[in-house]
Amino acid sequence: MLSAITRPTAILNESIARTNIRRMAEKARQQGVQFRPHFKTHQSAVIGDWFREAGVQAITVSSVEMAAYFAAHGWTDITIAFPVNWREIAAINDLAGRVDLGLVVESVETAEFLAANLSAPVGVWLKIDTGYHRTGIPWDNGDRLRTVAAAVQDGAKMALRGLLTHAGHSYGARTPAELQTIYDDTVQNLAAARIVLAGEEITGLTNSLGDTPCCSVVQDFSAVEEIRPGNFVFYDLTQVQIGACQREDIAVAVACPVVALHPDDHKIVIYGGGVHLSKEALVQSDGSRHYGELAIPTADGWQPFGPENTLVSLSQEHGIIHASAALMSQVKIGDLLLVLPVHSCMTVNLLKQYHTLEGQIIPMLGWAGV
Amino acid sequence: MLSAITRPTAILNESIARTNIRRMAEKARQQGVQFRPHFKTHQSAVIGDWFREAGVQAITVSSVEMAAYFAAHGWTDITIAFPVNWREIAAINDLAGRVDLGLVVESVETAEFLAANLSAPVGVWLKIDTGYHRTGIPWDNGDRLRTVAAAVQDGAKMALRGLLTHAGHSYGARTPAELQTIYDDTVQNLAAARIVLAGEEITGLTNSLGDTPCCSVVQDFSAVEEIRPGNFVFYDLTQVQIGACQREDIAVAVACPVVALHPDDHKIVIYGGGVHLSKEALVQSDGSRHYGELAIPTADGWQPFGPENTLVSLSQEHGIIHASAALMSQVKIGDLLLVLPVHSCMTVNLLKQYHTLEGQIIPMLGWAGV
Repeated sequence: MLSAITRPTAILNESIARTNIRRMAEKARQQGVQFRPHFKTHQSAVIGDWFREAGVQAITVSSVEMAAYFAAHGWTDITIAFPVNWREIAAINDLAGRVDLGLVVESVETAEFLAANLSAPVGVWLKIDTGYHRTGIPWDNGDRLRTVAAAVQDGAKMALRGLLTHAGHSYGARTPAELQTIYDDTVQNLAAARIVLAGEEITGLTNSLGDTPCCSVVQDFSAVEEIRPGNFVFYDLTQVQIGACQREDIAVAVACPVVALHPDDHKIVIYGGGVHLSKEALVQSDGSRHYGELAIPTADGWQPFGPENTLVSLSQEHGIIHASAALMSQVKIGDLLLVLPVHSCMTVNLLKQYHTLEGQIIPMLGWAGV
Repeated sequence: MLSAITRPTAILNESIARTNIRRMAEKARQQGVQFRPHFKTHQSAVIGDWFREAGVQAITVSSVEMAAYFAAHGWTDITIAFPVNWREIAAINDLAGRVDLGLVVESVETAEFLAANLSAPVGVWLKIDTGYHRTGIPWDNGDRLRTVAAAVQDGAKMALRGLLTHAGHSYGARTPAELQTIYDDTVQNLAAARIVLAGEEITGLTNSLGDTPCCSVVQDFSAVEEIRPGNFVFYDLTQVQIGACQREDIAVAVACPVVALHPDDHKIVIYGGGVHLSKEALVQSDGSRHYGELAIPTADGWQPFGPENTLVSLSQEHGIIHASAALMSQVKIGDLLLVLPVHSCMTVNLLKQYHTLEGQIIPMLGWAGV
């Protein structure tokens, strides 16, 4: 099915993606937690349907635009896991009038803004910084927890649902034990925040946890009520490095035409650059960086060619592969090579559509060809 | 005019862009060289018209898709400055039948492929590696120069035009003197290659040189017949670092809503992440990396806020600014900040449309909203 590919194209192994979805859905079911997968990774109504077939009814997105897209495709329970953007209040109100909308609040200012400007009811999650230090209310800042929670409760159209966190520092982990420690710290910090709020008689809250690494590796979710992983649908080399998956679990690769060979320099040049793959680099243990590993097309998908073959540099359209003699000997100009992405979310966002191994073309939000 | 902006948006200062275009066009005219600007930076028919108004008639692109887009918008002299992608031969033939098409060849295999598969005449440039070591025929590899040139001349539909190089190592320069040295080496190496080919009685060739840094700084182009800079239309922080422009020459910035403030951590959180700005990082002299500098909206555009305020990390949708006390004191949640891009080509490619300061919306190739 790759024979018709002429330019850099996201190739999706539907079977692997569906297995990744089913495995996480089953884990959530067994653990008795709400599974609210993050759809920012795939951004596709068709792939959303695969989640629905696995029993998913509630989703997470990272922008108002994505929420509107998935609402238009029949999703009715949507959390926008991003600090409320005041400038989109009109679109937020439109959505809140149509779906069960969850918003994320981390400041008194935003709670007061919503109290003054919401025209329909929403659920509100307090965004808690449990150690990632990107944004959110620091879990140990009792004053801020209390004042923001009180401001949310003062809003007639806001129902306080619970504490939402993204343990993004899990991306720095390299072993299951490190991930377990990050998870344990995270839920301990959420519990401490809940105790502070209970002191204000704010109870009945739930804990919502993001991040694919923890959700992939941790087996006991008794301390949370909801998980929101996203990347796991495709996984990528970053998740392999963390230990959240194996190379064989990666469901998406970018097919790139070979345009030049420089055997003396162990170099293959592909049509596939930063505008196709993103400039997200994988920093290896020795400090070196690369932009993807290579795989060879096979009859039923692709075969990873080993970590010694990597994309060592990217221009806007060019990719430069440092190739082993074994890879070099198999490749001719005009062939396709497949690139396993460093960060699948960023890569597929650039390509805007998927070609499945079965030849189906699946559009994403923002695809100009729709 | 920024008041209507609700989400991350490329803001274009048309006046600066037109000045950048006019300045480079004028320099080429004074130097008597063909000006064939690279349109991969802006990817927009409307901005293409600004070049036309400055007297430009010949252009460079980096993909067959871009060539087809600009051909559809009336451009008739187009070089695709990327090694020929065999898998797009049908589209190449379609274009070759309609416009004066220039292709780039660096191998005997590709020359023979074109000889066997072209259905309409094209001009051919030999891609010469003059020191960047991305791809191309090494300037000092006489055997390969001779055999590729001969294979091109054997093709009935191929006319050998000259030697094309991109001195991309100019991006490592930090002073005008370093840029001048790279330029001098580049044209010296092209001259050496020309001497080799003249020995085969291949004469009448021209030299075509890319790269915004050299084209911005070098004043004497007597050794080349054509220049192909692209980035200069917008410039960016990378070009400032190289010394190819001043911050005041940057024509594009990304307006991003402020969604959270953490004054104790000197941190501002914006809606503006890797999917809006790209993950292209500027590596500073101390080895630290950032993803953009900040500017404040003004009545007639923006005012850079100084290099001490930078985007220190990017997630898919979040940007984290390390903010000075001066910046922090001026910003509220809901405000817009402007991000000066590290690499404008990559950033605008993600955003797919421009909003000018005058309120015009300009689409790019691939904009889903067209």
